[in-house]
Amino acid sequence: MKSKKVTFADIAAYTNFSKTTISRYFNNPDSLTIENQQKIANALEELGYQENKLAKVLANGKSEFIGIIVPNLYLHYYAEMLNQILSTYRQHHYKFLVFVSDNDKETEQNYINELLAYKIEGLIVLSHTMTSKELAAYHVPIVTIERESEHVCGVSTDNYMGGVQATSLLIKNHCSKLIHINSNTPKYIPAYGRIKGFEDTCKANNIPYEIITADFGDSYASTVTQIGLIFQQIEQMDGEKKGVFLANDTYANIFLNSVIRQYGSFPPNYRIVGFDDSPIASEAIYPITTVGQQIEKMVQNAMELLILQMEEMKKRVPKPLREPIHRQITPILIRRDTTD
Amino acid sequence: MKSKKVTFADIAAYTNFSKTTISRYFNNPDSLTIENQQKIANALEELGYQENKLAKVLANGKSEFIGIIVPNLYLHYYAEMLNQILSTYRQHHYKFLVFVSDNDKETEQNYINELLAYKIEGLIVLSHTMTSKELAAYHVPIVTIERESEHVCGVSTDNYMGGVQATSLLIKNHCSKLIHINSNTPKYIPAYGRIKGFEDTCKANNIPYEIITADFGDSYASTVTQIGLIFQQIEQMDGEKKGVFLANDTYANIFLNSVIRQYGSFPPNYRIVGFDDSPIASEAIYPITTVGQQIEKMVQNAMELLILQMEEMKKRVPKPLREPIHRQITPILIRRDTTD
Repeated sequence: MKSKKVTFADIAAYTNFSKTTISRYFNNPDSLTIENQQKIANALEELGYQENKLAKVLANGKSEFIGIIVPNLYLHYYAEMLNQILSTYRQHHYKFLVFVSDNDKETEQNYINELLAYKIEGLIVLSHTMTSKELAAYHVPIVTIERESEHVCGVSTDNYMGGVQATSLLIKNHCSKLIHINSNTPKYIPAYGRIKGFEDTCKANNIPYEIITADFGDSYASTVTQIGLIFQQIEQMDGEKKGVFLANDTYANIFLNSVIRQYGSFPPNYRIVGFDDSPIASEAIYPITTVGQQIEKMVQNAMELLILQMEEMKKRVPKPLREPIHRQITPILIRRDTTD
Repeated sequence: MKSKKVTFADIAAYTNFSKTTISRYFNNPDSLTIENQQKIANALEELGYQENKLAKVLANGKSEFIGIIVPNLYLHYYAEMLNQILSTYRQHHYKFLVFVSDNDKETEQNYINELLAYKIEGLIVLSHTMTSKELAAYHVPIVTIERESEHVCGVSTDNYMGGVQATSLLIKNHCSKLIHINSNTPKYIPAYGRIKGFEDTCKANNIPYEIITADFGDSYASTVTQIGLIFQQIEQMDGEKKGVFLANDTYANIFLNSVIRQYGSFPPNYRIVGFDDSPIASEAIYPITTVGQQIEKMVQNAMELLILQMEEMKKRVPKPLREPIHRQITPILIRRDTTD
């Protein structure tokens, strides 16, 4: 089933180079001329040599492995982020070891320890399980995406600007009362900016507003129940035309479904904006206006920050970053059928 | 930043064992007594030894790596399948290297060759890019999920039974005309069974039926346009109560949206069934009845078939399987608001 293993001695005999030269080809190819590199490369192909990358990694420490920790893949946001990260293989040739954390801190820590034993070069963290201080203590190149990142490099959406964009559009749509619906979001999480952006814009424009936060539970069914109750509450409120900005497209779709089941079609007294540009925003009964995160751009920035750190580690005397680098990516307002 | 590297000599000195014994601990632990294994394990912890798994892999060939090739992560079906596969880390401790194929055969082949150079133990293939004959030629343990698998082990949903379940429910709902909507599906793909199951059940029950196949393009927008046209076509058809079975929940949701935009609420003259139990089936304006694939069970079976082959490879004289093993998992009908 397997062909005979080709050894350095076989390659040396075939090419008339010494075994030392063959070894240099694998561990320090730049020390050979281009012509000699090419001769050996051809011989490897002709002999059917199967490269053992692990041996090479042991010699030079460059595993070309990156670990990724995602909280879950149920939410399309994380699936799409992972999709974009994995696609960078075409450009950078890093191979990705992927782990789904599911809020299980102990298993996540075990997994990271395992990855370190496999000499991964870097780590991309999307889970919220560990603090950035705990992550920094691993002393391995790290970048986080859209989470608390005080002590490590991180990329996030400019959530404040997203809140401003959504609220400004609802004001331009002549809404007389603005409502923001969100879960209970702590101030140190990037997504809190959505609430702040909404509130500041309402105040600056002197528009009556309300912020409704709730615990939506951890199932889709409990979210439907909660948002159904909030819809009934909003129906009772004063205000000729209500502008509703929801923390994500899943909430926005459930709210829209409540409205349509009540009115039969999209009524003139509501305007709705979601957040994320998830597929559900397009697939809703009326395509939902939303604040789209630029996932491709976020991933591109995350890879830049990670590669910067990983390249540094390959130097003879690596200098760690003095300060973690943080980048914010501006989201884009996508206008569909739930606003003018 | 890094602690001093702990060598075998350090461990030997600390434990009073010979270096040979320490080496045996790493490469053949079963040759030591449990007590001595425990003594060395304690010493490693006390000395802050960081295991170098790569060295171990080189010694015994067990990398604990499995490669996964998914076609994309845009479709929730693949994201959920990946989620379930990655979750098996908790049970089996295999680490997964993930690649998104995006129909790019050349890059997929390069990637698989790279993984083989990293001594992966097995491969899980969900992409349709290569034939099972090409996959078998890699001579590495392989299992495919829901795709052509003549020459390798494979797990798929019993699509025929799913078609029968959906159609039988529409007949019980007293539909006088049955319609199946699907893309142009070749007969050698497992999903073709949905069409066959529909047709056989209609014939066995003497119910008038129609199979509408179309090219839906490769974007959501083109799918919406196509299904809108098909809805208009079905509106013109005879039949008091129409039972529509669609190839997946994305199609079913678009069809339902067309119906609701036309009628304002769910009308008595339609019954709708989708396939997959994707989140969109729950999130639709009226939750959609669907044939749910048992993804967890499919993954469990796929891992069993893969581990069977990987364990065999670790034997002194591995015997390859005489015939590839194939398993079919029966889907489950999930009744919601678009049927009685």
